[in-house]
Amino acid sequence: MSTRRIILHEVGMRDGLQMESATVPLDTKVQWLEALAGTGLDIIQVGSFVHPTRVPQMADTDRLFPALAGRIPPGVTLSALVLNEKGMDRGLACGVNMFCMGVSASETHSKKNTGMPIAEATTRIIAMAKTAAGTGAKVQASVQSAFGCGYEGPVPHERVLDIVRRYVDAGLRNISLADTAGHATPDQVERLYESVRSIDEGLELACHFHNTYGMAIANCYAAMKAGVHSFESSVAGLGGCPFTKIAGGNVSTEDLVHMLHRMGLRADVALDPLIAVAGQIAEFFAREMPGTIYRTGPISAFASHA
Amino acid sequence: MSTRRIILHEVGMRDGLQMESATVPLDTKVQWLEALAGTGLDIIQVGSFVHPTRVPQMADTDRLFPALAGRIPPGVTLSALVLNEKGMDRGLACGVNMFCMGVSASETHSKKNTGMPIAEATTRIIAMAKTAAGTGAKVQASVQSAFGCGYEGPVPHERVLDIVRRYVDAGLRNISLADTAGHATPDQVERLYESVRSIDEGLELACHFHNTYGMAIANCYAAMKAGVHSFESSVAGLGGCPFTKIAGGNVSTEDLVHMLHRMGLRADVALDPLIAVAGQIAEFFAREMPGTIYRTGPISAFASHA
Repeated sequence: MSTRRIILHEVGMRDGLQMESATVPLDTKVQWLEALAGTGLDIIQVGSFVHPTRVPQMADTDRLFPALAGRIPPGVTLSALVLNEKGMDRGLACGVNMFCMGVSASETHSKKNTGMPIAEATTRIIAMAKTAAGTGAKVQASVQSAFGCGYEGPVPHERVLDIVRRYVDAGLRNISLADTAGHATPDQVERLYESVRSIDEGLELACHFHNTYGMAIANCYAAMKAGVHSFESSVAGLGGCPFTKIAGGNVSTEDLVHMLHRMGLRADVALDPLIAVAGQIAEFFAREMPGTIYRTGPISAFASHA
Repeated sequence: MSTRRIILHEVGMRDGLQMESATVPLDTKVQWLEALAGTGLDIIQVGSFVHPTRVPQMADTDRLFPALAGRIPPGVTLSALVLNEKGMDRGLACGVNMFCMGVSASETHSKKNTGMPIAEATTRIIAMAKTAAGTGAKVQASVQSAFGCGYEGPVPHERVLDIVRRYVDAGLRNISLADTAGHATPDQVERLYESVRSIDEGLELACHFHNTYGMAIANCYAAMKAGVHSFESSVAGLGGCPFTKIAGGNVSTEDLVHMLHRMGLRADVALDPLIAVAGQIAEFFAREMPGTIYRTGPISAFASHA
């Protein structure tokens, strides 16, 4: 297990909300983002710079950044997802601290998302990443569908490693592997990250797991064992699609923090306000969210009440 | 990771049902048990021999064994939980293949369950285990609340290891550690099983995880890494108490089998009939069960339909 400090990257206000049909008002988003940023989480993803008609839930991202001014503790990094050059220009105008961008390791997924095959999409993302890095912003380059694809099924590890090699050759050091479909198993997670580390032992490695098939927490543990130190998660386990039987939310932030606390890690992150935000989100969407701990409470509470 | 074949022990009809207020009719239990035994699972726990007024859901255990005659494939082991000598006599009369019995590592839990402190309860269980083994039956000795206790909170590993040492000194070789409250974290699971293996490398090690706080699948993976080869689980994730906010069912059998299949393990166990039984259980109790895969379907189905 890596001895590096674990970094927590909250992506619920982006990856979580974009699956929802109900649009969250800007004021509510500001309130949730402020609460999340106050818990001790390291990086908060504010939104994505996509075309507003494509993802209406992200249409207010440009207005969110100025609305957050003075509400975010110093030291908290505000990130955003960008898909193209135009989005990056908008992000630069907003003062984004960290740009997240990526390529899918599934040809079908890549073409559906970007209209481009993987090789071409990678070339474009690398150019964007260099531009972003040139402004002094942090940059994270990801590989989506890295552990399997809802369209194609299995994704060969070698295809993921090819993209990572191109990132590394271009000087990108912060690499995230995303299990977009939730297909990863923990043994696969260990193997793939070990292969990535064999490309370059010194990379900053992040992971992004969806809990579609109930394995996300196990995959986080496996990633931790394999030397990953940055974890992307969504408060309340946001991201499950309420209109299909496939409830594929991100790993729940409060469930992950709860496990880390029990492992003696990241005691500086406050669990109670995370649970409170998860409860507010459940109330807003008027349904039970995928997270566990916001419903059960943490173990310590149970032990003391029993 | 152990190279031994993984053994799957279905305990839903015992540990799962005893939490339910609705009593399942004998014919329904027989139907579910027959279906479960036909999936390729290795051991099926039929029930427990406890006083019928204490756990009314288990009152028909003596009648279940003869009702199952001719319905269970050869090679499937039928197990039962016994708490005392009288229960063991009933089990022996029924032709139980494998007796499960145990001691809690929490003094409070031990006194509540048995009226005895741990040391005395251990002495009694060892005597019972020797009697059971003398009849030619298989015997599994467990340590309950091995990873933490809902009454006491943390349970020192040394207390668990003391019980295991007494079991091993008495010649018991099949040892199960049960996370009764669901407090275990995967790193703790690895540490505790490694300590148990340092007592005797050749023990048959089983695990029993509850998913109260969402960590059961991660704990199964950690146990696998630590050399455990026998896994206790409940179809549909049965065992959650529907009347409290703490939904502490066992790890779901079909979720575990699904993960194992994705890892290339136990492909001989049929997932579809497991999912079918989980669906019937959800229908019987008229509520959503804790398991994931019976709702989402397996990954292969999703990939081929997308």
